[in-house]
Amino acid sequence: MSRALVTDLYELNMAASYLHREMDAPATFSLFVRDLPSNRGFLVSAGLEACLEYLEEFHFDDDELAWLRTAGFPEGMIRQFETVRFTGDVHAVPEGRIVLAKEPLLEVTAPIAEAQLVETYLLNQITYQSALATKAARCRLAAGHIDLVDFALRRTHGTEAGMAVARVSAIAGFVGTSNVEAARRYGLTPAGTMAHSYVEAFGTEREAFLTFAQDLPGRTTFLVDTYDTLKGVDTAIDVVRELGLSEDVGVRLDSGDLVALARDTRERLDAAGLSWVRIFASGGLDEHDLERFRLSGAPIDAVGVGTRMGVSDDAPFLDTAYKLVEFDFRPVMKLSTGKVSLPGAKQVWRSHPISSDLLTTRDEPGPAGAEPLLVPVVRGGKRISEPDTIDAARERLARDLDDLPQSALDLRRPTAPSVVVSDHLARLTEHTRRALTPTSDPPDQSL
Amino acid sequence: MSRALVTDLYELNMAASYLHREMDAPATFSLFVRDLPSNRGFLVSAGLEACLEYLEEFHFDDDELAWLRTAGFPEGMIRQFETVRFTGDVHAVPEGRIVLAKEPLLEVTAPIAEAQLVETYLLNQITYQSALATKAARCRLAAGHIDLVDFALRRTHGTEAGMAVARVSAIAGFVGTSNVEAARRYGLTPAGTMAHSYVEAFGTEREAFLTFAQDLPGRTTFLVDTYDTLKGVDTAIDVVRELGLSEDVGVRLDSGDLVALARDTRERLDAAGLSWVRIFASGGLDEHDLERFRLSGAPIDAVGVGTRMGVSDDAPFLDTAYKLVEFDFRPVMKLSTGKVSLPGAKQVWRSHPISSDLLTTRDEPGPAGAEPLLVPVVRGGKRISEPDTIDAARERLARDLDDLPQSALDLRRPTAPSVVVSDHLARLTEHTRRALTPTSDPPDQSL
Repeated sequence: MSRALVTDLYELNMAASYLHREMDAPATFSLFVRDLPSNRGFLVSAGLEACLEYLEEFHFDDDELAWLRTAGFPEGMIRQFETVRFTGDVHAVPEGRIVLAKEPLLEVTAPIAEAQLVETYLLNQITYQSALATKAARCRLAAGHIDLVDFALRRTHGTEAGMAVARVSAIAGFVGTSNVEAARRYGLTPAGTMAHSYVEAFGTEREAFLTFAQDLPGRTTFLVDTYDTLKGVDTAIDVVRELGLSEDVGVRLDSGDLVALARDTRERLDAAGLSWVRIFASGGLDEHDLERFRLSGAPIDAVGVGTRMGVSDDAPFLDTAYKLVEFDFRPVMKLSTGKVSLPGAKQVWRSHPISSDLLTTRDEPGPAGAEPLLVPVVRGGKRISEPDTIDAARERLARDLDDLPQSALDLRRPTAPSVVVSDHLARLTEHTRRALTPTSDPPDQSL
Repeated sequence: MSRALVTDLYELNMAASYLHREMDAPATFSLFVRDLPSNRGFLVSAGLEACLEYLEEFHFDDDELAWLRTAGFPEGMIRQFETVRFTGDVHAVPEGRIVLAKEPLLEVTAPIAEAQLVETYLLNQITYQSALATKAARCRLAAGHIDLVDFALRRTHGTEAGMAVARVSAIAGFVGTSNVEAARRYGLTPAGTMAHSYVEAFGTEREAFLTFAQDLPGRTTFLVDTYDTLKGVDTAIDVVRELGLSEDVGVRLDSGDLVALARDTRERLDAAGLSWVRIFASGGLDEHDLERFRLSGAPIDAVGVGTRMGVSDDAPFLDTAYKLVEFDFRPVMKLSTGKVSLPGAKQVWRSHPISSDLLTTRDEPGPAGAEPLLVPVVRGGKRISEPDTIDAARERLARDLDDLPQSALDLRRPTAPSVVVSDHLARLTEHTRRALTPTSDPPDQSL
């Protein structure tokens, strides 16, 4: 399926002009986050796989071309759109890596029309997936020993976002998802219990629990708060005994004071000899609740994390940009107030443990022992390697998080590691700026 | 394409149990928002069209059934999933209408397995589309005479959300969208200018402006802030004169103090005899900026509203619920702390102008002159009427907004109109609650 029209009109306008003029010199665009949201000390790179699939398939189909005709693009431009494919190179930060403000997550080098046409889709996927992956990582960090399950699908911004949330929360270390299609598509563990409606559909809670345990053996988590939570726990205990269940049983708390209820529930279960029954909590929870559960030592084994993670409610977007940094072998930048960009293709060098990253031009050597974050992923329009796996991304993220200073991990007032611009990149920036501002006034914009 | 697995696992668990037990009595579920976000005085209903398409197509395809087998559902249950279709009735509030907390946006009545299986998708679409439509309506209200264009696609939560934002912002009264696929799909007006990269790709700003105006006549909005905004305006004036342009030209301001720059820009354009050239503004704007533009009398003709509208950054989700309210002709409710629901199928009655809505059981007569918000839309699994149009939804919203008290429209500290529960519904609630709580203790939960 073509997604070439899933773009902003101005991309088509500009590409049409470039193609018409045969301006096919290579352009490098850099995709980065200008500034971190104030409550974020790091970001998690995500969305690259979707971008690479898109780039490999990029083309206009016949219906799209026909529509562009009706939208007023002249026949000569339509014929040029017809043959456009993405033939460029991409360097990118693999999914699951920690990134910071001003560090490119992705750089595209291609004939300028191609590089321009793909802007909107690349920005869309990297922006929202990285925002959501970051939120999921914060939840995972806060939860300590507690297992986390993605429960977000019902309130994500559409089902496409729901799939991405399941995937990026798996990268963050969630152990399962309620999202069945995501489980199928990405090989995740599907997880689910029962709703209050199930309990209400039977004459009594006890009848509901008995029926569910009999019909769905091995999936038995009793939702105990439909009428009265602790009575619900007692009913669950009765049913476990009556049916002689001896494994894979949980009770789910979905309302009220979850820490206190978990303690009371654990006590009742233990007193009944059911210390193996797990306690699952849910209900509008986020990383701050998870931290509270961890610090209180509440006997909660697993938590379903939903809406607030699935929309990243406290930072639902990132201030991303996709900026032309080089055209026809000439570095370029813009000087717009508050939005000055750094010219040239770049590399990010990371030392361990992470204290500050070094931002350089792409070809500069890095410091001894430092690792380059951007790696080649597409050459001449084709992927260089096999599609990445969720497992590999999860391992990268776990390693990078271990490597971050505690100050970056703080949930409320984090301090991100610094990003230092190399001397060479600083000189290139100053040189490029001077070439654009013929006056001798000191520049009034800071980077 | 089947979307039956785009759901939470628990829906499949519960439905499997109901189907297995042949529990096919009708169930009514009510989809509503528990509480408004604190900064919202009203909500705009949206997402119904997507729900109706989904319900009409609902089925499990062979690949999905095969996967469910591997996921451990027994063969008997798989065979029952194979034949499930949505055969029920739906009452809903049409898109574009103002709704308030506790008012059903949609009620499904169907055999309980069917009504349960569709929960997740219906919640997903209604929740995010209504959240985004509400944000777009706030922007439209704040902007006064200024035309608004949707610029959100690059930072929405995926491209599905991007399409919905274009559509619901059109319902809110936006005049165009940058999203080309949405323009094609929904018959909207595509809108777009140029990016900074276009200006940077030429030796000078002047050369870029000349080229663009020649290659894309009739689409000429010059982005003037790449290097120095007011110099950019002067360059645009020169190019307009040199090419003898006499209509359909604009300049776009994308950074800096937009009110001051718009005034200076207007002055220069007018002094050059170009009072017909329009001023377009953009750059991280929301309803508060739009209100400021309006109140300042800034000479801004149109604004591109992007990310903050497209993710509803200050209220990215709604606290929606999909609750069983009647099963087998018996009203039901839950008593969970803080989440008590009202039993029975319902109707919402609205008087004009809107001061308070009346929430009743579905069959109660409404007050004289009041209008019912919920209308039948699906009967026996089939749509009753033709698909709704964006124009019709836009008209409904404009009428309802005119009808709202000023206190509900305040951007910062709105007060929503009240929702009053009818005596009959209050009695039904009390009766149902008593049947569930055999003690004589006074109920300790408020609605």
